[in-house]
Amino acid sequence: MKPHQTVPYFHITNPLFFLLLAIVVTILPATTLQAQKTDQMVRLAKIKVDPAQLKAYNKALLTQMKAAIALEPGVLTYYAVAGKKDPSTITILEIYADTAAYNKHILTSHFKKYKDTVKDMVKSLELVDVNMIGFAKKPDN
Amino acid sequence: MKPHQTVPYFHITNPLFFLLLAIVVTILPATTLQAQKTDQMVRLAKIKVDPAQLKAYNKALLTQMKAAIALEPGVLTYYAVAGKKDPSTITILEIYADTAAYNKHILTSHFKKYKDTVKDMVKSLELVDVNMIGFAKKPDN
Repeated sequence: MKPHQTVPYFHITNPLFFLLLAIVVTILPATTLQAQKTDQMVRLAKIKVDPAQLKAYNKALLTQMKAAIALEPGVLTYYAVAGKKDPSTITILEIYADTAAYNKHILTSHFKKYKDTVKDMVKSLELVDVNMIGFAKKPDN
Repeated sequence: MKPHQTVPYFHITNPLFFLLLAIVVTILPATTLQAQKTDQMVRLAKIKVDPAQLKAYNKALLTQMKAAIALEPGVLTYYAVAGKKDPSTITILEIYADTAAYNKHILTSHFKKYKDTVKDMVKSLELVDVNMIGFAKKPDN
């Protein structure tokens, strides 16, 4: 190689450069891998519901989730899932800005109404405090 | 009340009208309650990791999550959480566009590399198929 000769695959006119650029531009905005923010409170709620009252329970749960996200700045995320084999076994992933936000949350009228509505529908409730290892999502998911 | 008299608290010049408008405008965009899209495949992976290899496991997991979200159109969402009391007990919420996307996913090189890397780190693995009852999130969460 002569002195000052450009290495061909790093030359900006090489089509590979544009291919790499296109890949980077495509991937970057789609990648939202994030670790837990320091103060966040993350929890898994594991709930067994009376199967005969499952429809009413799910309705009350969604009403509570919607109100909390809409009205409380410190309630960030809820995902509620039900077993395919046993839809009365429910897991909720809950993310709050911090423990203060959670302590406020349980004093709100929508949360109290939920607790009162479901008190005879819930057969067991296990609250598991967790740390977020990380999450990754497509935009708008 | 005289005929045609305007009810004062519904009159548009009443400050309450603007307060209500402000509340509605504030709440609407913050509410993203959604049910599962019909074809989505949603799963909880429950994993027990060898505590001595937890750091290496978490690194391999995050690498896999990031690659799958960046490279696979059908891999939509991952949340990985670890018990506060027992960080070697891990739960991952996984959302794929459909089962075809999942079947493609497990054939990718990044997934195969993850499985190979962690094969002696994972003590047990339980895969629980679930349905999304609903989720609600603040924008950018």
